[in-house]
Amino acid sequence: MPSEVIELSGHIIDSWTLPRAWDVIMDRGGNFDVEEMRVGTSKTETSYARLKVTAPNDETLELILSELQQFGAVLLHGNDVQIAVVEQNGVLPSKFYSTTNLPTQVRLHGQWVNVENIEMDVAIAIDQANNRAYGKPMHEVRAGEQVVTGHDGIRVQPFERARERESFAFMQSNVSSEKAKVLAIHEIARQMKETRAHNSKILFVLGPAVIHTGAGRYVADLIRRGYVQVIFGGNAIITHDIESALFGTSLGVDLRSGEQVEGGHRNHLRAINAMRAIGSVEQAIATGLLKEGIMYEALQHNVRVVLAGSIRDDGPMPGVINDMQEAQKQMRQALQGVEMAVMIASMLHAIATGNLLPATVRTVVVDINPSVVTKLADRGSFQAAGLITDAELFLRELAEALS
Amino acid sequence: MPSEVIELSGHIIDSWTLPRAWDVIMDRGGNFDVEEMRVGTSKTETSYARLKVTAPNDETLELILSELQQFGAVLLHGNDVQIAVVEQNGVLPSKFYSTTNLPTQVRLHGQWVNVENIEMDVAIAIDQANNRAYGKPMHEVRAGEQVVTGHDGIRVQPFERARERESFAFMQSNVSSEKAKVLAIHEIARQMKETRAHNSKILFVLGPAVIHTGAGRYVADLIRRGYVQVIFGGNAIITHDIESALFGTSLGVDLRSGEQVEGGHRNHLRAINAMRAIGSVEQAIATGLLKEGIMYEALQHNVRVVLAGSIRDDGPMPGVINDMQEAQKQMRQALQGVEMAVMIASMLHAIATGNLLPATVRTVVVDINPSVVTKLADRGSFQAAGLITDAELFLRELAEALS
Amino acid sequence: MPSEVIELSGHIIDSWTLPRAWDVIMDRGGNFDVEEMRVGTSKTETSYARLKVTAPNDETLELILSELQQFGAVLLHGNDVQIAVVEQNGVLPSKFYSTTNLPTQVRLHGQWVNVENIEMDVAIAIDQANNRAYGKPMHEVRAGEQVVTGHDGIRVQPFERARERESFAFMQSNVSSEKAKVLAIHEIARQMKETRAHNSKILFVLGPAVIHTGAGRYVADLIRRGYVQVIFGGNAIITHDIESALFGTSLGVDLRSGEQVEGGHRNHLRAINAMRAIGSVEQAIATGLLKEGIMYEALQHNVRVVLAGSIRDDGPMPGVINDMQEAQKQMRQALQGVEMAVMIASMLHAIATGNLLPATVRTVVVDINPSVVTKLADRGSFQAAGLITDAELFLRELAEALS
Amino acid sequence: MPSEVIELSGHIIDSWTLPRAWDVIMDRGGNFDVEEMRVGTSKTETSYARLKVTAPNDETLELILSELQQFGAVLLHGNDVQIAVVEQNGVLPSKFYSTTNLPTQVRLHGQWVNVENIEMDVAIAIDQANNRAYGKPMHEVRAGEQVVTGHDGIRVQPFERARERESFAFMQSNVSSEKAKVLAIHEIARQMKETRAHNSKILFVLGPAVIHTGAGRYVADLIRRGYVQVIFGGNAIITHDIESALFGTSLGVDLRSGEQVEGGHRNHLRAINAMRAIGSVEQAIATGLLKEGIMYEALQHNVRVVLAGSIRDDGPMPGVINDMQEAQKQMRQALQGVEMAVMIASMLHAIATGNLLPATVRTVVVDINPSVVTKLADRGSFQAAGLITDAELFLRELAEALS
Repeated sequence: MPSEVIELSGHIIDSWTLPRAWDVIMDRGGNFDVEEMRVGTSKTETSYARLKVTAPNDETLELILSELQQFGAVLLHGNDVQIAVVEQNGVLPSKFYSTTNLPTQVRLHGQWVNVENIEMDVAIAIDQANNRAYGKPMHEVRAGEQVVTGHDGIRVQPFERARERESFAFMQSNVSSEKAKVLAIHEIARQMKETRAHNSKILFVLGPAVIHTGAGRYVADLIRRGYVQVIFGGNAIITHDIESALFGTSLGVDLRSGEQVEGGHRNHLRAINAMRAIGSVEQAIATGLLKEGIMYEALQHNVRVVLAGSIRDDGPMPGVINDMQEAQKQMRQALQGVEMAVMIASMLHAIATGNLLPATVRTVVVDINPSVVTKLADRGSFQAAGLITDAELFLRELAEALS
Repeated sequence: MPSEVIELSGHIIDSWTLPRAWDVIMDRGGNFDVEEMRVGTSKTETSYARLKVTAPNDETLELILSELQQFGAVLLHGNDVQIAVVEQNGVLPSKFYSTTNLPTQVRLHGQWVNVENIEMDVAIAIDQANNRAYGKPMHEVRAGEQVVTGHDGIRVQPFERARERESFAFMQSNVSSEKAKVLAIHEIARQMKETRAHNSKILFVLGPAVIHTGAGRYVADLIRRGYVQVIFGGNAIITHDIESALFGTSLGVDLRSGEQVEGGHRNHLRAINAMRAIGSVEQAIATGLLKEGIMYEALQHNVRVVLAGSIRDDGPMPGVINDMQEAQKQMRQALQGVEMAVMIASMLHAIATGNLLPATVRTVVVDINPSVVTKLADRGSFQAAGLITDAELFLRELAEALS
Repeated sequence: MPSEVIELSGHIIDSWTLPRAWDVIMDRGGNFDVEEMRVGTSKTETSYARLKVTAPNDETLELILSELQQFGAVLLHGNDVQIAVVEQNGVLPSKFYSTTNLPTQVRLHGQWVNVENIEMDVAIAIDQANNRAYGKPMHEVRAGEQVVTGHDGIRVQPFERARERESFAFMQSNVSSEKAKVLAIHEIARQMKETRAHNSKILFVLGPAVIHTGAGRYVADLIRRGYVQVIFGGNAIITHDIESALFGTSLGVDLRSGEQVEGGHRNHLRAINAMRAIGSVEQAIATGLLKEGIMYEALQHNVRVVLAGSIRDDGPMPGVINDMQEAQKQMRQALQGVEMAVMIASMLHAIATGNLLPATVRTVVVDINPSVVTKLADRGSFQAAGLITDAELFLRELAEALS
Repeated sequence: MPSEVIELSGHIIDSWTLPRAWDVIMDRGGNFDVEEMRVGTSKTETSYARLKVTAPNDETLELILSELQQFGAVLLHGNDVQIAVVEQNGVLPSKFYSTTNLPTQVRLHGQWVNVENIEMDVAIAIDQANNRAYGKPMHEVRAGEQVVTGHDGIRVQPFERARERESFAFMQSNVSSEKAKVLAIHEIARQMKETRAHNSKILFVLGPAVIHTGAGRYVADLIRRGYVQVIFGGNAIITHDIESALFGTSLGVDLRSGEQVEGGHRNHLRAINAMRAIGSVEQAIATGLLKEGIMYEALQHNVRVVLAGSIRDDGPMPGVINDMQEAQKQMRQALQGVEMAVMIASMLHAIATGNLLPATVRTVVVDINPSVVTKLADRGSFQAAGLITDAELFLRELAEALS
């Protein structure tokens, strides 16, 4: 029977990497012997396992090895990464390697090289001249470029659960709505402070319910206090934010009284129309027309805002990007340096951002609808910790916890 | 074609009583002429309509009239209520009249008499000697008692929407989770103050998530400040309340750290066992074993607590009523004088309470799961205003709004 | 006190137009006298009411009249529609009239003219030369065009509930999941047959769960049998449809066994890559690469397919429109002649389509998540009847009911 | 540092018992060496691990060992189980051992004895004379009885995932509603056939939505075909079942037309009243009054029916048990021999049954609301596989798959 010896190292016990690797081997019809196993004796010490994997035939062995790779397995005797040349713009070679959102390395000329700009479901482009490797979406590859194929010479660093339990881990195990939220919110506040303490960026992904529920003021407050460096959203959030700044309503509902105001259904269109007339939100601020709200604070505090349109948009508002590839491109750029993401009441933009985020970015998804969290996890953003609660009460509590 | 003249009066325009009456007439195949119509010209003035209802045959006319009754229609030339004698304990005469939860009157000896203890789906018992009428559940009727049958001589006062819009009305129209909650919570606080200002009682119906989420302290606070006169709940809420008072956990989760404590899954059983050993919660307080929590505060402040068991209970805790008819009976008694009900994170007890509440009791249902609100409305408690949000953050905000 | 006499006619009793009009008058602080009222005596006969509306001042009267307009009120002595000229491309005059999705007429030179291409939240452009009026989205208006402003000379035909109750109406009243579904599905089937019998078009809006749940085959079947003329969807539905046709998987899950296949997470990218390599789906069919599935059947049976991209897309698949204004434009064109819309398991595309659909198009929204139906209703698509159920079991039953 | 050597055996790799044991050791602050490890080389061969567990102090070691016990760990040198005598009826000794729902053994006189009637959260009573051990609820223990305390001499057999993946396992991992349901339903049908083939019993737990959705006929059909041996439910399911048999309605809605019938809101009370008048459902069948429905078929086919009341009940219907301890007792008896449980559209009864079911009973929970599945899992019934779908369409498909 064909066999191969692999090594796994890191927090493979705590992070369940080892048992998941065993699962894969046995589910695919192979077997293994534990040749050596060392368990880290302190919280920071890593563990190590060397397994001899056997399979009934070469094909199955190959298949098993390629899956083990996702858990960080490395062949004792490995090869360089395999490469093919793109022949047609925007089309990958048929055996292209498709990334996960985990930190990934490729072996070039016998050395492990980090893949830059890693995200889910992209190809890896190789720059031989500079000995570099990049994550690259399918539609951006150009004829002549080299991209990685097959499974050789690829090393993925699995998601490692820290030994010390943290709220995130605790929440992750469960989409239950019957848990203490204030505790979790204070833990999120702590992590935001920590993130800012070493000058990393925090991303907020915002859905329009943030405005409808009257919680825009808390986001504005967080911006002023330096807890927001990047904002992703759509046409709706900016429209209702400006509607609320100009008319005090959101979708025509007065945010102070909760009542539908007369003609209020027109207000979001009036807000868009006003910005289109003046040319841009920046111009509206410059002329003193726009004096408050999330967009106002964001532009005053140099927050990077990427607003991506969608087919359900009215208008659109100036500044909203209508070409989806262009929007993704700008989102990718804005994600540089982001170490924490807080997604609130936004299904479309949360999933879109989830697709682009490396698994190393701490991600919190806040929604009153548990299905949003389930959908994110179903689509591979397993690092996302879900908090099933109200946008308004969450933000109010978060703002308080941070002050 | 047979016809009959009926009168409708009250806020029949604002409350849509009139159009709903028209609907019934036409849906059942009848028709009508508006013989007279007067619209109230101020917020407090009532309106009046006199309709001549026609139908293709007597049977249909009868059917229409009986339905119009639910909207408060009164025949110009009416009869006394019809009565039959109960022949078997706990069994009604076959043509028994089944109540709604709306204020109801019956005509006895030519006079309209209020039906006392009205609730949904009960019979009306008549006490001829004292000229009184009572709502009475089927299993409580005794042979020899008189109960109302048919449709004659019954007048129902429809649910009337006040002319001034209030938050309750606004919320009622919608189970949307995308609305401003803080506003609604402040409106609830205002109504609680108002209710207490004229010495009426406020009922809290509590599910165990109130404790799991760490919100028990806010309820305890509301009790101390006199905003809770009656509590309905089950075995779970009392068990976890006492578990939290004795061990600091709820279902084994530490309420301060959010972590599962070792052996914590036993804590709810230990709490029950401790109370069973000492005999009662009252005794536990007397001996100084129980020093905090909802039950502690409730007993210290003479709050009427009715705890009804269910088949999913462990234990049960002393004080929990295990016979369902007995539990309903005590709940009925405790509801005397209640003018406002706040139901939090409890499906079973909320629906059970909804069955017993007259429609005149202001009812707020707070749950993170919209289906609870939908279920209540489906079961006839249309007066319930739903707030789709988190128990913990709701209670925290409510406690703040009331201070 | 200023006053004005208005007329309301049509099914104003059954459709509750009259009581809603009264509500508006009184909510805004006005009052009314019913000068004349005639109730239709048969199912097809319409009703009529003439009201004298009074208000404390001219401003309030104006406000009331503009709202009554939405219910179809017409001033006894009316004026022509008011018009302003667009001064800047893509920017409306500040007093622009914003449409509902209800059938609308404007008075030009004393005559009522239908507004063509009506949809929610657009402006009305006037073509004086040809005596025509059009719904037009803000971003499409050009300098020099005339658009409607203010409230004069506009007549809206309110949504009229037919006297005969139908399943749609029944469903509308309720987002309950505790209702008989098979009955409702058979009613939908009946309406689809009826729609096809007079050669009108049926639109299907499809989300990817249709494929994930293995229900693609039923949609393919409905296409073959002529029950689908237009399909709206996104990158995901086409990608998984083609993934399933090429590899038998959807998001890597084998649709026959329900198991995750090895390397399956790459399959959706492989499907996109294959189509990009060959150039288009049409080409893939021509060369025999693609032989089954929804896209295959759609293209074989001349179904109009509009696929609109979004920021969460991988790829994208050839044929998916990435510019949102272009996508909306093509959706608007494709909606010509559509009389019935069935939206399945798609939140984004359902809301986007809801924005474009006139209220006269019968609309069914099928989703296992009640919040989708709530969101549609919140956003104005009140004509949408929701069915809270499973995409797969719904489609299986529908296909059976239609055969 | 104190240490102890433990053994784990069984499918400890596939079932993740081993990694979970490691987790516990490290989470509690201990450490371990793998002294020996053998991995089963075929699907049926078990694995074995011997670990030396160390901890900073005796207390922590004790704590770790007690938790490892839940995973089936056995001390190399073990003692007999510890026992205390009950001093007060219905009150346990303070150090009582609280069970899981996993198969459990206790060591009596050096021998491992199976604990009979195991369920979640009960005590273990010891019958020294007959060398037997029983699960016993707190309220049933009597003064003088011996119950298990502490952690010595207890062996729990962890839940073992079979090597061959099955639909159940696949479903378990996920509460997603975006999966193929028909596949899963056919797998459930296969397991039902298998269960019946070796003469084991199948339990159905039914909520009233089964009747409201018109799916009662499918359950009746399954009973006739021998696929139902035990039914658990409440007052609502029997009431609406009989309402539907007598009047063709459920909660007043005609099950053939989906329309609310006149006076239909009384029908459920009329159904209860009719049974109360005749004395029992059995009598109603004997006299020919009741001729169809679930109860009719159940009684004709000797299905064991346990109906447990709740505080939201009208009536109640004869046969419904109103004392909760009595109801639990009868449910416990009826569960003897049950190997598979199918719970449909019932939250209260599903959770109550989950509390009583050993983990070895295959359990399927069908509900359109994902929170029911989450709640069951939160409360310890981890063996429950959830299917998020419609009761009616599920039962229709199941009935078809079984024929």
